[in-house]
This record gives sequence, structure tokens and C-alpha cells, in this order.
Amino acid sequence: MDARTVIDLNCDLGEGFGAWTMGDDAALLGIVTSASVACGFHAGDPGTMRRACATAAEHGVAVGAHVGYRDLAGFGRRPMRLPAAELADEITYQIAALEGFARAAGTRVRYVKPHGALYNTVAVDAEQAQALADAVHRYDPDLPVVGLAGSAGLRLAADRGLPVVAEAFADRAYAPDATLAPRSQPGAVLHEASAIVERALTMLREGRVLAVDGTPVALRADTVCVHGDTPGAVRIAAALRDGLVAAGIELRAFADVES
Amino acid sequence: MDARTVIDLNCDLGEGFGAWTMGDDAALLGIVTSASVACGFHAGDPGTMRRACATAAEHGVAVGAHVGYRDLAGFGRRPMRLPAAELADEITYQIAALEGFARAAGTRVRYVKPHGALYNTVAVDAEQAQALADAVHRYDPDLPVVGLAGSAGLRLAADRGLPVVAEAFADRAYAPDATLAPRSQPGAVLHEASAIVERALTMLREGRVLAVDGTPVALRADTVCVHGDTPGAVRIAAALRDGLVAAGIELRAFADVES
Amino acid sequence: MDARTVIDLNCDLGEGFGAWTMGDDAALLGIVTSASVACGFHAGDPGTMRRACATAAEHGVAVGAHVGYRDLAGFGRRPMRLPAAELADEITYQIAALEGFARAAGTRVRYVKPHGALYNTVAVDAEQAQALADAVHRYDPDLPVVGLAGSAGLRLAADRGLPVVAEAFADRAYAPDATLAPRSQPGAVLHEASAIVERALTMLREGRVLAVDGTPVALRADTVCVHGDTPGAVRIAAALRDGLVAAGIELRAFADVES
Amino acid sequence: MDARTVIDLNCDLGEGFGAWTMGDDAALLGIVTSASVACGFHAGDPGTMRRACATAAEHGVAVGAHVGYRDLAGFGRRPMRLPAAELADEITYQIAALEGFARAAGTRVRYVKPHGALYNTVAVDAEQAQALADAVHRYDPDLPVVGLAGSAGLRLAADRGLPVVAEAFADRAYAPDATLAPRSQPGAVLHEASAIVERALTMLREGRVLAVDGTPVALRADTVCVHGDTPGAVRIAAALRDGLVAAGIELRAFADVES
Repeated sequence: MDARTVIDLNCDLGEGFGAWTMGDDAALLGIVTSASVACGFHAGDPGTMRRACATAAEHGVAVGAHVGYRDLAGFGRRPMRLPAAELADEITYQIAALEGFARAAGTRVRYVKPHGALYNTVAVDAEQAQALADAVHRYDPDLPVVGLAGSAGLRLAADRGLPVVAEAFADRAYAPDATLAPRSQPGAVLHEASAIVERALTMLREGRVLAVDGTPVALRADTVCVHGDTPGAVRIAAALRDGLVAAGIELRAFADVES
Repeated sequence: MDARTVIDLNCDLGEGFGAWTMGDDAALLGIVTSASVACGFHAGDPGTMRRACATAAEHGVAVGAHVGYRDLAGFGRRPMRLPAAELADEITYQIAALEGFARAAGTRVRYVKPHGALYNTVAVDAEQAQALADAVHRYDPDLPVVGLAGSAGLRLAADRGLPVVAEAFADRAYAPDATLAPRSQPGAVLHEASAIVERALTMLREGRVLAVDGTPVALRADTVCVHGDTPGAVRIAAALRDGLVAAGIELRAFADVES
Repeated sequence: MDARTVIDLNCDLGEGFGAWTMGDDAALLGIVTSASVACGFHAGDPGTMRRACATAAEHGVAVGAHVGYRDLAGFGRRPMRLPAAELADEITYQIAALEGFARAAGTRVRYVKPHGALYNTVAVDAEQAQALADAVHRYDPDLPVVGLAGSAGLRLAADRGLPVVAEAFADRAYAPDATLAPRSQPGAVLHEASAIVERALTMLREGRVLAVDGTPVALRADTVCVHGDTPGAVRIAAALRDGLVAAGIELRAFADVES
Repeated sequence: MDARTVIDLNCDLGEGFGAWTMGDDAALLGIVTSASVACGFHAGDPGTMRRACATAAEHGVAVGAHVGYRDLAGFGRRPMRLPAAELADEITYQIAALEGFARAAGTRVRYVKPHGALYNTVAVDAEQAQALADAVHRYDPDLPVVGLAGSAGLRLAADRGLPVVAEAFADRAYAPDATLAPRSQPGAVLHEASAIVERALTMLREGRVLAVDGTPVALRADTVCVHGDTPGAVRIAAALRDGLVAAGIELRAFADVES
């Protein structure tokens, strides 16, 4: 694999709900190139969605639908099993709802990324991965799906004919099988900006990451995820952006890259 | 006013939620010309919305977004006061979500009709009527709004530049000021099919209705509402359709009528 | 095992939500001896809960808390994974909310029964079974837990020191391991009243049931579940009651039986 | 009126929901004498409720049920009209749910206070005030209701036979009729700790407050509300506590005062 010279930074956004806020959307939208906006099922309310789309459009940041399980109380982090057709319909609903605000902001939904427990489930569960792929394909067969780099779920979406975008996490530890080490594991989340920048550069230049046990794991990343809801999120995101730019890597939304 | 020779019959549809059903959508979609589909805030879930859109499209029935307050527990029948911008965003969300299923069914959202307490509120409350008109205008300035015939809210939507569709109720008693007699009032809801047909014919031919006190009230109707969730709803809807056709009135979705 | 001469019939009740109804609570409360009342998380709203408790109390029917996952859209039938402490708190909340209406009706919550996917999960999943047992024990260590006869979850609750009540299903087919055959399997649900009565009598007299493959399965039942939301539910429940009484078996709430 | 020598400080608490937090419950529970805990309808989830009750009990802070409209998206700040019986049942549900956690913490619900739009509505709307009084009376006729000092709603609860607790706001401006100046009005909310302390002392010593137009308004206060969700909330609450103590006023939960 060649070293990447262009990369996308995406961030979860619009994760407030009503009177409750989460993350600093405005600051993050000045840093990232893609914004994964919650659509009201695990987080997000109509006003928050509208503002996120409008601000993203102002900054030239690509808007993506961050679709999740219908679980406000659990922030979409509770794994759920539901019939594939039901899940597909819930995903369609969320994409379409966000589309209304994206279009009002003069843009549109440029990609779909599953959130939380749905993200982890579709990485490995064929039925739910298929439901996601079916929902997106039915909505728009040219709409890219973002998923865990190297996951079975991402391959399944590609087999379904959808453009797929491999995502890597610069602030997360990896298991030797290229899955994310569970958050409950010590060291699973990196908090040091310099370590995060270094990890991202290794991913992009060498196409690999060192797993928790030291095993080198091949990893092709089209987008790097920046977390918005952790302490110091804005500072880390800015450091990552600066570090990549300083290393000569161009930041551009994958949705804006000619394929 | 000239007697109408063409009329639209619209019905509230897709009002189930998850395991709970309401009304006989399939039967009603064989009778009406426009389907006002609940969008998930007061009723309706993604699967129900998809099926309602698909079946409506098969029958050539026009799909409308039946937007309501965010109040599943109250079925959108509890009047709420909320900031205009918040209400507008909630309406945008609902229209857009339904659009996803309408487009998947090969059609699109052809009109917007407020539901329940929102319907009654926008008829008389300028702030909420403005929020509705703003939301629809922002979404698509050519999208018609359905509202109570003769209401201030409908005039406000027209002043905003939106196409407006005046709705009459053949199964409801009217007050002398052309508002609906409250459901709590005896005789407020007609249950006799023949009386409902007769009332509809008077509306369409003479452009008026007799109020509860006998006062004749002028009433121009572009669409007649058929209730889907009352006992005998399907039978009454079929009788109304048959009665109108027998009287030489053509049934056609207002959205399909050249303006 | 000795043949049972006294048995409890329990039924899921109060499963409406707002404008949506499910089952004929009033009719069923004239038949069963225990009412498992939904508590608002998977079904049930405050008014429905109040009425179910009041009517149950009038009929001398024991009230139980039918606790479920927080999932109105899925009716609590979607398996969910959530932290044990979170699940325990959600269960406490539901029991306590129902207690308010039970006490207002002059009675109290006499038992706890998990609903839907939670019922099936706690039968086999130690973490969730423990969360249920912890929640009930914290609430009242003398409060019985109803669960699948012979399940690991029920043993776990007994080990925790709670009174346990083994439940059997007269209208469901059993697998050879004494679990219920999945509803998706043909013949998994019996609809014939006479077959249901016969199956119940075999369970109570012989302490066993024939599995789908003909294997006899030992089954000790303290309560027999009657479904309230299936077609013909009331008729079947009445037939079951009449059949048991005609066979000389006394119907009495397990909560009213001296232990 | 005699100057008060003992007063209660109450604060809204437990207003997070799932992943979303609001206010610093732990810090505030070291300052106030009564905690009005959200019960899950406008805010609050089971885990948050449990922790709030447990921490309150540890600090000897009285737990109250902060009941609100069923409106998570609007944080209970959207006025709603609903049938009185329905509202009463929703209130019962919330009190009872909190009771479960209060009892688990070794205490119980000591009072009921309406939240947000419900607070303002019951102050002036007889139907909703009656529904609140009915719900509390049915639950426990000795359970005090907290309401706006001097309001019709509080008199109605007293006429119903309930103990009533008059609440004043040291950080809010008053209209000449003893209602709160709307938040939208400039100066409606005081942010200066010294001004808030001074206002509280005037209320307690002189039994009056100066309205926005300078009119002195008689005001008997049994409890003073401290807001938990405003910037600097903890600092202001601490300053208020210190200022009252320095002025020789004892802080004690009204629920702990012999009547």
C-alpha cells in the first residue's frame, strides 16, 4: 500500500438532545472535514440537526447520517437484536430525516455511518450489516457507508455495490484481529495528543497499527475518527489536524475526493 | 361559488406504532385519493410508514405528511406550546423522514397536513401557523398545506405563498363560526353513513354546511376528510365514496389536479 | 412429583399505550388469578396501569409487575444488552411505578415477571438474571419472581433468596431442553382450545410436557400463562379455566397460597 | 409576619438523562436541605434517580418528587393541556417510581414539586392544579406540595387538605402580582450572588420582595429555590447558604420541621 497523502477527519456531532448538550459542535466543525450527525434515535433533536447541518455547510464540512438504534436512554450503546427489515426501516427514517436539514442548508447527506452499538454490531453481524446495506442502497446506491476498516460488515456493503469508506481510530487501541479493544480495557482509549497524532501518521504512512499485544495489524484508512464527546476533544482534534498537515497530509472530505 | 365536480377524499393513515395497530390502512387505501401518513411523532413507526407509502403508491393514492406534536403517549391530541423555531424544526424532521419512504415507493410527499391538537392550534394560533408555514416553505415552497376550510391558519399559509387546500369534515358538526364542534359535545361526530354522504354533497354542491344551531355556514372544500380510526370507518368511507360517485362527482387527489 | 390440585393462571395485561389498545383486560380479569401488568417501558401508560390495578383488585386478582426493556417501539421484544446496574435500576423503576397504582387500588405488587425478550434473556443469561434478582431483592426480598420453569435464571433468583414461581405455557410448544420453541417455528403456538386444555392438564397432573420431537420433558409449574393479545385470547383463557375447574383443579393466585 | 429564623433551601436535581448530564448533583447535595429529583418524564433516568436519592440520604437532604410533563425533548418546559385524570395518573406514576429509589436509600419521598411548565401552569390553572392535588392526595394525604408562594394553585392544594409549602425564588425577578417575571424579560434572572443573598434575606426577614417596577410584594416563603443548572449554580448556592447562616438563619428541610 502507498502512503496516503490525503485523508478525511470525521467527528460525531449533533449529539445533544433538547436541553442537554454534548460536545462542542461549533469548534469541531472548524477542524474536521466530515461531520457524522446524530439523527434523533440515539441522540440529536431536530433543532440540533438543523444547526449541525447549517454550520457544517458553512465550513464546507461534509454531512453524514450517524444512524443508531432507537435508544435515547442508552445513547445507542446498548446492542439490540431486531428484525432486519425493521432495522432497515429505522435506518431509512434517520437518513431521510437528516436529509431534510442537509438540503435546507444547501447540501445533502453525503454518507452514512452507524453509531455506537450498531457500529460494532454491523462490523461482525451479517444480518444487521445486510440491513444497513439494504437501507442505504434503497435510499441511494451511490451513498457511501463508513465502517470499521477491515470488517466483514464493510466488505458486505461493498459486495452490495455501495461505495465503502474504511475508518480508523487514532485514539483507540486495536486488538490483533483489527477490531477495537473494548473501552473497558485499560489503555483502550488514548488521551495523549502526541500519541494520537503519531498513531494516525503510522496508519496513513505505513498502512498499519500496532495492536495491544504489539502485533502489527494492516489497516487501510479512508477516514480517521475524532471523538467529540471526550474530555479535551477539541484540543485533541486540533492537534491531530495540525500534526497531519505538518506532516504534509492534506485534509479533505472523502466525499469530495474524486473516485 | 360553483358546485364542485371533482373532490379529494383524504384519510389519516399509518397510525399504528410498533406492536399496536390502528385503523385498516389497506382497506382505506382502496377508497381514498389522498393518504395523510403519520410520521412518528404522534403515531407511526418506520415500518408502518414504509408500508403506507408503498400501498398508497400502488393504489395511486397521493401521500401527505401528517405532522404532529412529539407526543406518542397523547397521540398528538394534547395541545402544546413550544418555540416557533423548535416547532418548525420538528415539522421539517417529520416531512423529511416520510419523504424517505415516499421516494423509496416511487412517489414523494405531495402535501403536509397537521394532526390532532396541532391541526386545531394552527387554525387559530398565528405563531404556530407561521411555524408550520415556515417549515413547509423552507422544505418546498410548492408543497401544499391542508387545513381547516376558512381558518386563519390556512390564510396565513396562503399569504406565505404556499398552495393551500381547504379541508371539510363530512362526519363532524360545525359551530356557527365554521370551526368544528368539540368532540365532547353531543352530536359532534356523525356516525350514520347516509347523513355523512348528504352532508358532503351539500358542502360540495352548495358550498355550505348547517352549523349545530342551524346557521348556514359558507364552506369551500378542496378535500373531505374521512376518519380511519372510528368504528365502521371503512364502511363509512366506502359509502361516502360511492355516494359521491353516484352523484356524479369525480374523486381525484387534489395533488393530481392541474392548478 | 404429585399432581397439582391448585394452580394459578396468569395473563399479560395493561399492554395498551395511550390511544392504542391491546387485549381485553376487563374480560381477562374475570378469568385469571394473576395479572402481569406492563409498567410503561415496553407497554403500558399510567392510566392503563391504574385501571388494570383497580379492576384486578375488584376481582381479587393478584397484581404483578411485568417489567421489560425500555423499548416501546419494539414492545420489549428486541433483546438488548445493557450494564447490569442499569438494568436493575430500570426494573426497580418499573416495579415502583406500578406499586403506586396497586396501592391506590388497595393492594400491592405481589410478584415480578419479566416480559418478552427480557423474559427469554434472564432464563439463560446469568448477568441479566442477576440484575433482575438484585433489583427485586433490593425492592423487597419477599417478592416472588416468575420465570420459565426449569430455567437457570429461575434457579439463580432462588439462590439469591427470592421466592420463585415456575411458569409453564399451555399454548406453546416446547423444545426437548424445556425451553420454548421459537414463535417463528411452525406449530410453536397452539390455537386450539381443547389442545391447550389437554396440555395444561398433562403438565399439572403428570408434571411433564411432550416436546416438539415427542420427548417427554419434566416440568413443574406453579403458574400457567394465558396470552392476552392473541386472536381468541379471551375464549381460550375461559376454556382453559373451565377445563381445569372441570378436572377438579382449583384456581388460586400463587400469591394467595400459604407457603 | 414574623421574620423567619429557619428556612429550607431546595434545588432541582437528577436532571441528567442517560449519557447526558446536567448540574453538579453531588456538590449541590452538600449545600441544600431538600432535593427535588426529576422522575423520568421531563428528565431523569433510573440510575440518576437512584444515585440522587442515595446521595441525598447520605447528606440528610430531604427527597422530593419533581414531577413534570412527559416531554423529554422539551425538558418539561412546553406547556401542555391534557385531561385532568391523565395528568393525575402521570403524576402518580412519577412519585411512585421515585419512591422505589428513595426507599432503597432508606428514606422516602417527602414532598412533591411540579417542574417547569407544569409548575407555572398549576400556579394559575385550576384544572391542572386540581389534578396535581388529587394525585398527591390519593398517593398520601400527608405529603406536602411545593408551589409558588401566594399562587391560586397552592391555595387549591391547601383546600384539598394537603400540607403546602410556599416557595420563593431568590434569583428571579417578580412581577407586581407576585408571579415570576418571564425569563425572556431582561433582568428576570439574577446572577450576582450578593444580590441573591440580599433578596433572600429581605424575603425571610420582611416577608416581601420588590417587584420589577419597585412595588413591594408580600411573600411568605417556606422554602427558597436554588437553581442547579445555571452557570455558577454551585457557587451561588453556596453563597446563599453561607449568607443565610451568617445572618443567623438556620437551614433545615421543611420536611424535618415539626408542624
